[in-house]
Amino acid sequence: MPRAVVVGAGMTDFGPHDQPLEELFADAAFLAIDDAGVSLDEIDAFYFGNAMGGQAEDDTHLAPKLATHIGLQGIPCQRFEDACATSSNAFKHAVQAVEGGVHDVTLVGGAERCTPETGLGTGEMTKIFASAAHRQYEQPAGLTFPGVFALLTKRHMHEHGTTEAQLADVAVKNHYHGQFNPHAHFGRDTTTEAVLESPLVADPFHLMDCCPFSDGASAVLVVSDDLAENFDGEPVNVTGVGHRTDAVPLADKVSLSATQSARDAAREAYDQAGISSEDVDFAEVHDCFTGAEVLAIEAVGLFEDGTGARAAADGRTYVDGELPVNPSGGLKAKGHPIGATGTAQIVELTEQLRGTTGRRQVEDATTGIAHNLGGDAGTTVVTVMEERE
Amino acid sequence: MPRAVVVGAGMTDFGPHDQPLEELFADAAFLAIDDAGVSLDEIDAFYFGNAMGGQAEDDTHLAPKLATHIGLQGIPCQRFEDACATSSNAFKHAVQAVEGGVHDVTLVGGAERCTPETGLGTGEMTKIFASAAHRQYEQPAGLTFPGVFALLTKRHMHEHGTTEAQLADVAVKNHYHGQFNPHAHFGRDTTTEAVLESPLVADPFHLMDCCPFSDGASAVLVVSDDLAENFDGEPVNVTGVGHRTDAVPLADKVSLSATQSARDAAREAYDQAGISSEDVDFAEVHDCFTGAEVLAIEAVGLFEDGTGARAAADGRTYVDGELPVNPSGGLKAKGHPIGATGTAQIVELTEQLRGTTGRRQVEDATTGIAHNLGGDAGTTVVTVMEERE
Repeated sequence: MPRAVVVGAGMTDFGPHDQPLEELFADAAFLAIDDAGVSLDEIDAFYFGNAMGGQAEDDTHLAPKLATHIGLQGIPCQRFEDACATSSNAFKHAVQAVEGGVHDVTLVGGAERCTPETGLGTGEMTKIFASAAHRQYEQPAGLTFPGVFALLTKRHMHEHGTTEAQLADVAVKNHYHGQFNPHAHFGRDTTTEAVLESPLVADPFHLMDCCPFSDGASAVLVVSDDLAENFDGEPVNVTGVGHRTDAVPLADKVSLSATQSARDAAREAYDQAGISSEDVDFAEVHDCFTGAEVLAIEAVGLFEDGTGARAAADGRTYVDGELPVNPSGGLKAKGHPIGATGTAQIVELTEQLRGTTGRRQVEDATTGIAHNLGGDAGTTVVTVMEERE
Repeated sequence: MPRAVVVGAGMTDFGPHDQPLEELFADAAFLAIDDAGVSLDEIDAFYFGNAMGGQAEDDTHLAPKLATHIGLQGIPCQRFEDACATSSNAFKHAVQAVEGGVHDVTLVGGAERCTPETGLGTGEMTKIFASAAHRQYEQPAGLTFPGVFALLTKRHMHEHGTTEAQLADVAVKNHYHGQFNPHAHFGRDTTTEAVLESPLVADPFHLMDCCPFSDGASAVLVVSDDLAENFDGEPVNVTGVGHRTDAVPLADKVSLSATQSARDAAREAYDQAGISSEDVDFAEVHDCFTGAEVLAIEAVGLFEDGTGARAAADGRTYVDGELPVNPSGGLKAKGHPIGATGTAQIVELTEQLRGTTGRRQVEDATTGIAHNLGGDAGTTVVTVMEERE
């Protein structure tokens, strides 16, 4: 079976953009295409993720639209929507198509606009995104996603004694990283006090515990490993992609704090890669809220249950710590253009494993993982990437 | 390489439904599951299509939601949106996953609610669906899909002398078939005069040239052929799935009347199956408007360019004709719940090739195709299915 390799990666700045989705995505796509040194006529298929373009911008059937703008019309193009795990699911399908011999060279990416550049405020966008909550049981109660993750995190606090100050330290760590990422929406550091003194959004989350809605796009070229040396971009191996789900709504989950889909997806990804969590050098995880990072790093096995909350406060998950988490700044500081987030994590893994990220570089990194969840963690995709020997 | 086989198929009635999407889809899913005689714990993955649930019903992240309602939470679940080609694209990915050895037993389906049961009228739903037209170049001009297909069809009339009466005869033929389909939205016949006298919607289309928006769901079980005999449902082989795109917007297409993506998708599907269009015994095609059926049967090679318009009038595409098209009644009479249409075509192919459709049965059918387009034919998926020897 051919394995999948990333040979090109690119992303736009995350933050407000006034371009249409076609132009925004093309900016990322051509960075990836130029990085790979691939010509358009070599690309066999396009896997695209966008979560809310229909609701936020009256824009659907986006895969052929964006392909046309790039000059790729004709090839198979498909759009995925799995809430925030949208483009990592697109990535999974591209990897499977390459491994199955269906395609040799694929473009994968995501784009989303969520800022007031769309004409919609954060309140309206929060309501739109709440469509990922259960339609009959949760939406009528007014449950939006700060509340969803507050519930998950409150359970973790109850079980393990996690504190608001520990959560704030996750934000401080990710903002520290974000100041070294030129694409970050928030490229400045912060303090524990500033987080704790920011307005309460949904107990225990203050404003600074929450990632922003961003505009942005990201793209990667996924190719068959026997072609890897044909391209300009330094190849990085994709050795595992695990994808699992959990019950929706929240009331049907066996555990709120375990995020079972992440545990199952991580196990699948590690098994595919033939590694264990102990082999992981760094991780990009889905820190839509500070508490989500704590749940994630425990679920994927990087920290024992109940110890994740102390990891940032103890310095262990900083870029120069023993197990760096979100060196990109994560969703918290880098930003969160929903459908672009999954492949943006793959961009960061690619650049880290190439050793080209500068001040936020994880030293001697050979194995990295991405953890991208959708909705209330009803979907999780975990990807393992490794330096090519 | 294992081939993919359909061992179970089911669909709800198409027409108004007052159930939530979860319940509507579950009705179709359990028909397919019961038909296959598969147990839930044998199902490895769920591929789901829904086009407009976010815009029409504030409902996204549907794949794990619907899986939970059925009792399938945990497995990989993914949602596709490619306008009207949504669930045939989900089907393509399930077939590729089975052929690639990723999964052995998959549930594939689609569900959509588009009638006033959603609280939205046909005008509002038409505007929502126009999000599949180009956001910058077409939507601001007020171009909705009756107008899109009117433009494609007007070009065919200009090139080939196709008449409104010939188009009306397509509707008459599909309504004739629809009266034998107990699931059809419109289970009654009509006349050429009735079509031509119905109100003009978008020249040359009268109301009776247009398919309805329907509510409905459809589902199939796609499994690896080495497992085919393990299930109760009579297996039918999937021998080809072609998927191609064309430029969006309309102004960027090389030809309006050729629907190039259908030509390319058909060639790919026939090549995979090792057949030519002459081997096809019957077809389900995407007759969202009468003109669309004419373009489709020419594009997939069943009729020479310029001869498709006469096929229904001459009786050739009736169920007892030489090359039956849309024995189910097609979108025109069976109905068109957007995201459910693609897999509903697969349901019809399965039942026809099993010989179980009763009065609308195509005699001695061994090879059938489905043609499912998205948007302005910016996407087309063509599937070949064959009787198992």
